[in-house]
Formats: sequence, C-alpha cells, structure tokens
Amino acid sequence: MTETQGGHSPSRRALIGWGGAGLALGAAAAGGAVAMTRAGQDADPAAAEAGTAVGFHGAHQAGIATPVQDRLHFAAFDVKTDDRAAFVRLLKDWTAAARRMTAGGTVGAGAYGGLAEAPPDDTGEALGLRPSRLTLTVGFGPSLFDRFGLADRRPASLVDLPKFPGDNLDRARTGGDLCVQACADDPQVAVHAIRNLARIGFGKVAVRWSQLGFGKTSSTTPDAQTPRNLFGFKDGTRNIAGTETDRLSRFVWVGDGDGPAWMTGGSYLVARRIRMNIETWDRTSLQEQEDVFGRDKGEGAPAGKPKEHDEPFLKAMKPTAHVRLAHPDANDGVTILRRGYSFTDGTDGLGRLDAGLFFLAYQRDPRTGFIPLQRRLAASDALNEYIQHVGSAVFAIPPGVRDADDWWGRTLLTEEA
Amino acid sequence: MTETQGGHSPSRRALIGWGGAGLALGAAAAGGAVAMTRAGQDADPAAAEAGTAVGFHGAHQAGIATPVQDRLHFAAFDVKTDDRAAFVRLLKDWTAAARRMTAGGTVGAGAYGGLAEAPPDDTGEALGLRPSRLTLTVGFGPSLFDRFGLADRRPASLVDLPKFPGDNLDRARTGGDLCVQACADDPQVAVHAIRNLARIGFGKVAVRWSQLGFGKTSSTTPDAQTPRNLFGFKDGTRNIAGTETDRLSRFVWVGDGDGPAWMTGGSYLVARRIRMNIETWDRTSLQEQEDVFGRDKGEGAPAGKPKEHDEPFLKAMKPTAHVRLAHPDANDGVTILRRGYSFTDGTDGLGRLDAGLFFLAYQRDPRTGFIPLQRRLAASDALNEYIQHVGSAVFAIPPGVRDADDWWGRTLLTEEA
Repeated sequence: MTETQGGHSPSRRALIGWGGAGLALGAAAAGGAVAMTRAGQDADPAAAEAGTAVGFHGAHQAGIATPVQDRLHFAAFDVKTDDRAAFVRLLKDWTAAARRMTAGGTVGAGAYGGLAEAPPDDTGEALGLRPSRLTLTVGFGPSLFDRFGLADRRPASLVDLPKFPGDNLDRARTGGDLCVQACADDPQVAVHAIRNLARIGFGKVAVRWSQLGFGKTSSTTPDAQTPRNLFGFKDGTRNIAGTETDRLSRFVWVGDGDGPAWMTGGSYLVARRIRMNIETWDRTSLQEQEDVFGRDKGEGAPAGKPKEHDEPFLKAMKPTAHVRLAHPDANDGVTILRRGYSFTDGTDGLGRLDAGLFFLAYQRDPRTGFIPLQRRLAASDALNEYIQHVGSAVFAIPPGVRDADDWWGRTLLTEEA
Repeated sequence: MTETQGGHSPSRRALIGWGGAGLALGAAAAGGAVAMTRAGQDADPAAAEAGTAVGFHGAHQAGIATPVQDRLHFAAFDVKTDDRAAFVRLLKDWTAAARRMTAGGTVGAGAYGGLAEAPPDDTGEALGLRPSRLTLTVGFGPSLFDRFGLADRRPASLVDLPKFPGDNLDRARTGGDLCVQACADDPQVAVHAIRNLARIGFGKVAVRWSQLGFGKTSSTTPDAQTPRNLFGFKDGTRNIAGTETDRLSRFVWVGDGDGPAWMTGGSYLVARRIRMNIETWDRTSLQEQEDVFGRDKGEGAPAGKPKEHDEPFLKAMKPTAHVRLAHPDANDGVTILRRGYSFTDGTDGLGRLDAGLFFLAYQRDPRTGFIPLQRRLAASDALNEYIQHVGSAVFAIPPGVRDADDWWGRTLLTEEA
C-alpha cells in the first residue's frame, strides 16, 4: 500500500482538497462560492443544469426559494454539549464544510488527500459526482433556546406547535435542537452531505431522526409541471415560485421588525411526516378520490375547470375538499411555500408500504401560516381519512451566510444582533 | 366533478390505457414490447437514454444483464392463497401489468380512464414520467415450493442459504415466497411498479419486506465508472458486463441440463441486507481503510497498481483484504454478477444512520457462487469488523417472458416443462 499511498502528490492532494480541477459555472456561482464539477469529473454540457452548483452565499439561505431539487435527506439533531464556544466552533466548521460541499468539493483535505495514519476528512462516496445543485439549509428548534443562555433570543414566532386533531406523533420522529435540509438532484450527494455534517458534529450533536425523500411533490419553478404525490394527484399547484419576490417577501422571508433582528432574512420551517394509507386509498373510487382533493386526477384541474392552473371555483368543490380548505381564499389570503418529498421506508409489520409525504413548508410566521391552516385541515379535510401525521418539528431558519467570513447562526450567537 | 369526469372521451381513455401517444423508440424495444414515453410527455432527445424503455420480452428476464439503473425498489412477498389457479391468474395479471409498465404505460385503463364509480386501475403517481428504463424481474423463493404441489420441481440449486459466521438476520427482512426487483432511473417509477403489483396481488400475496436503494454500487456496463459504496470505495470493479455473453453463460444463466428444464435461461438471485457501521468506519485511518479493501481510495486501484482496472496482484494485499478474498483467483475462478444498491433508512435509536448495501447477486448456481464465496468472506474478510448481514433471501429467477402470450412462471406452473 505504501507505493499507492506515496502516489498522492502534494499538488493532487491540494487540488482534491478544493474539489478538483473545477470548471467555473459562473451563472450558478454567487457571493464567492465557486461552482465546479466534483473531483475527477469532466463538465458535460448536456447535464449542466442538473450538475451545476447553487451559490451558498446570500441574504437568504439556499434551499428555500431555490428551484426544488429531485431528492432530499433531512436530519434533525440534538445538541450534546453545554459548551457555547464548542457549539459556535461546530457551526463555523459546518458552514465551511457546507460551503465546500455545495460547490462540489470535499470536506477538508478530502477522502484520500490527508495523512494515511488519520481518518480521511471526507467520507468519499460523493467523489466523482457532480455538485447536483446541492443546497444545505440549517434551522434552530425551540429546544435549542433552552441552552447557551439563548432563552431571551427565542423569537415569538418560533412557537411549539399545538397538538392538532388526529395527530399521532412518534417522539422518535419529532422535534430536534437543530436541523439540516439537504436537497440535491443526486441522492448520494445529499446523503453524503448529512453524513459528513453528522461526523463533524460527533460528540457535540447527534442525529435525532432523519428522513430520505425520493421524489419531490412541489415545484417552486413557474410553469413547471407539478409533480404527483403518492395518491397520484398534483397538489400544491399554486405554490409560491422562487422568482416571485413579492410573495416571498410577504409570506416566506422574515422582515425587519417581525421579531428579533437576528432573524431578518430568515424564515420558519414546519416539517411533518405524513403517513399515507396507500392501500386504503387505492381501493377508493376515482370519484371519491377526485372529490377528496377537489381536482380531477388526470389533468390536475380544480373541480369544474379544464386546466391545472385555472383559478379554482371553490364552491364547485365539496366543503371538505382539500383544495377548498387549503386555498388562500379560505385562509385570509395566507399561503406557505411547500417543498415536500414523497418517501417510502419499506414495509410496516402488516404488509403495507410505510410511505407518504414528508411535508416541508417555509413561512414568515407559523402562527399565521401553518398553524391556522392545519387547524382547518385537521378539523375538516376529507383527506384525513387517508393520512396520519406521525412526525413533527418546527425550526427557525436564520438568514443566509453573507460571505466567506460569515457562518450559520452568527446573528443568533454573537452579541451584535 | 361531473363535467370534468365527463371530459374523458373514450378515445383519450383508450390512449391512456396504452401509455399515451407513444413515440416508438425502436432501439430499446424488443420482442413485441413497444417503447414509448409516458402519457402526456413529449419525447426529449437529450433525456432519451435515461427515459427510454427496456424491452420486456426475451430468453432471459430484463434487470440482470441490463445496464444497472440508478434506483431500486425491491419487494419480497408471501403467498396467501392455496388456490393454484388463483396463483396462476395472479402471475398472468402481473406479467400483463409489468409488460405495460416497463413500456411506460399504466395498468389497465389507467389512473383516470376507468369508471368514476370504481377505483382506478393504476395508482397514477407515475403519470407524466418517462419509462425510465424500468425493469421488473420476478423470482421464486424456496418456501414457494412447499405450496401448489411444486415440491418435486424445486431445483437442487435453490438451496436454503446456510447460516454464515457473523450473520445477524432479522426475520422481518429475510426470506419470501416471491420477489420482484424493480430498477429504474426514476425512483417514483420503481416505487409505482411495486405498489401496483402489490395492489393487483391483494388477497393472494402480501409484501413481506421491501427495500429502497438510492444509489447503484455496481456497473454492468464495460468501461463505465464503478460507483462508490457508502464506505467511499469502488467495489465490484471487475463485475460481469451485460455484453459479455460468454461470462454470462458461464456464471449467470442456467444452462440446459443444469437442473429442471423449467429454469433454463433463468438465474439465481441472492439478496443480502448488509448494514454498514458508517460511524466506526469514518473514524478509521485511510491506511486501514485501504488495507481492508486492498485498493486505494482515490483511484480505486488494486494495492500497488496505478489504475482501477489493472489486474490485481493479490499478494500485495493483506491476507484478509476484501478484494483478495473475493477475487475469482481465490475462488476457483467463480464469479457472480453484482447489482447492489446503497440504502439509508433513517436513523437507528442510537443516532447512527441505518445505512448500508443492499447486495444483489445473480449466478448460475448459488452452491458454486455466493455460498462458497461468502463462507470465505465471513471467515476472514477484514471488512467484517465494519459490516453486518441483517437480511437474507434466495430466489430462483425463471427465464424470460418470450412473447405477448407468455407469462412469468409459465415454465414452472404448466406441465409441459
């Protein structure tokens, strides 16, 4: 092995450390992050869109208004240290790693660029893969504010979610001091990112629960086809597009004066694991299915209308139809940005697929966003017969990392804010 | 909803039933299966390779020598009926559905082409998606031969796997009367296929266990990059390529006279869920990692050699190195066709990723293929410190469906064979 080991020349090592001989893809690079292909991979123009990097720096974190990627790995963490300085160091280390991984690079000296006697800095399974539009989005749960003297910095908007009728929450899939949402077009890239952050956090944080999502159920791209959920329906047709700066400001981004200054430019994330009773649904008539959603199944058009994007006529739907209850007109105009993924986690003990929707919604304030909406749905939605909420969490999503000196959570953890 | 429902004209209904206005992609169509894009989707030449259909008919089932697709959904089923005629009907229904789904179509009249008063024939979540090179491969487990008077047709090659040292098998992830391997480049297409087969089988079969695989770990394409496993290594570099007809005949396909005639053209599949102790591995030095595999991590070259595809010099490796023990030279020349996938199923109760390799290997006879190989590995492989086999199954894979009148298992279940 010595020969092979010796074959790692310093220049190659350094190159690998920075993510390989990168081709700058200027359009996608922003604020100092250099978009590049992963080590050892030539740029392929045909795959450029899926392969590019998403800029890491900005006023808002990436992964919210960013066009929805195909795959998800989401992890909630518990903090295991009481040492505030160690926690700040972790957030800085995470930021540095996230900056490199989202640009298509490896963590530290990489998977085989370090000392033979030490564990590699990067676990290596994403070597040779493209950046795949990886975004990493960090959040802070309510319980984090019980630590590190942060109690008086907890935003009023970061409420504990109430118990909704029908909730059947599994504690092992609920809550968390921190979260990281990894979205990418290649699942191996998303899994690699979460795993390496967990590894960097060893001894300071531990994964509380995690969730893989195999298929996006929402689009934040105007005019794109709305993907179908596991009930075979298009849902979230009128989602907020990532280009709609007005609606983003109104419904997604925390504004000046909304609460503590450290959250300005941030958002709030509600995550719900929603088990779908696939087998029951599949034995339900087409008419009942369409009545439940208030849409036709083929086109995805609202009841009585010919086209998916037609303005719904709510009174054409049953009073318990999902679209009717969730529509902004029925909710004082409030809307949320949905970014959920379908999941299938094998089979339960009864031969049924353990499948459903991992619902992710971003909003300016859960008290006027998810909470009243879900109260309404939990009380009346015809869909409730076919679904069950089995996991739940809420997180404050701090603003974006501004530049190469900034880090996740700086506005929360330094006194200036 | 009546208007919308009424909007489904008979001609559109019929169209949808056959998978939409299909563009025949001649190159991929074989033996009567027509390759087409899914309903409502225009052909996009740029995505043609990933989007095309794989021919369903042939001497061998697709999904074995077929170039490995990106994603997997695998299900093992238990048979719940003692009625042989009902079981034969199920296999015929499954074959018809598999023929349509692999061509990019829907099951029966589709997701919204049937009667409003009845459940749709197809669950609908794959509408608008491409065929995505979906293959469906069926297999028969040893326990199936305890039913339907099949005991004397069980091949001698279909042995119950022995208990190997270190096995820690979970009964809930082991065995099965039947299996279906669904591989596709789009996970939603693979999930849709298994779900619809399970649905068709309601009351006759039930899912015993299932497994999603998010990333392929093997290649059956000559000269393709070997994908990395979750330990960050390229493994299975010298896998049998789907184009190597000589090696396929020698090591994968059941030949005339190998056993009962009904298996000629078939194969045997061993499936193993291998949990990888990611966190322990990630704290291991690069030198130790490379010694364990007998390869360098960066290039994937065998110890002491510069290139991945160089012929390994086994004596340059430690006696316990994985490559050295698994190499055909150490196993009387025997090799198997590997088609495994990485999985991540959330987190165990201890904050560790429940991740690993869902190992799938096809061979002409497990008694000369997987069993002696695994005995050797289980006894000595340095990798054993970092992995654990937690699920296991073996299946006889019958030959291919020859034409539109043929069906999965015909050679087993009709007297002629």
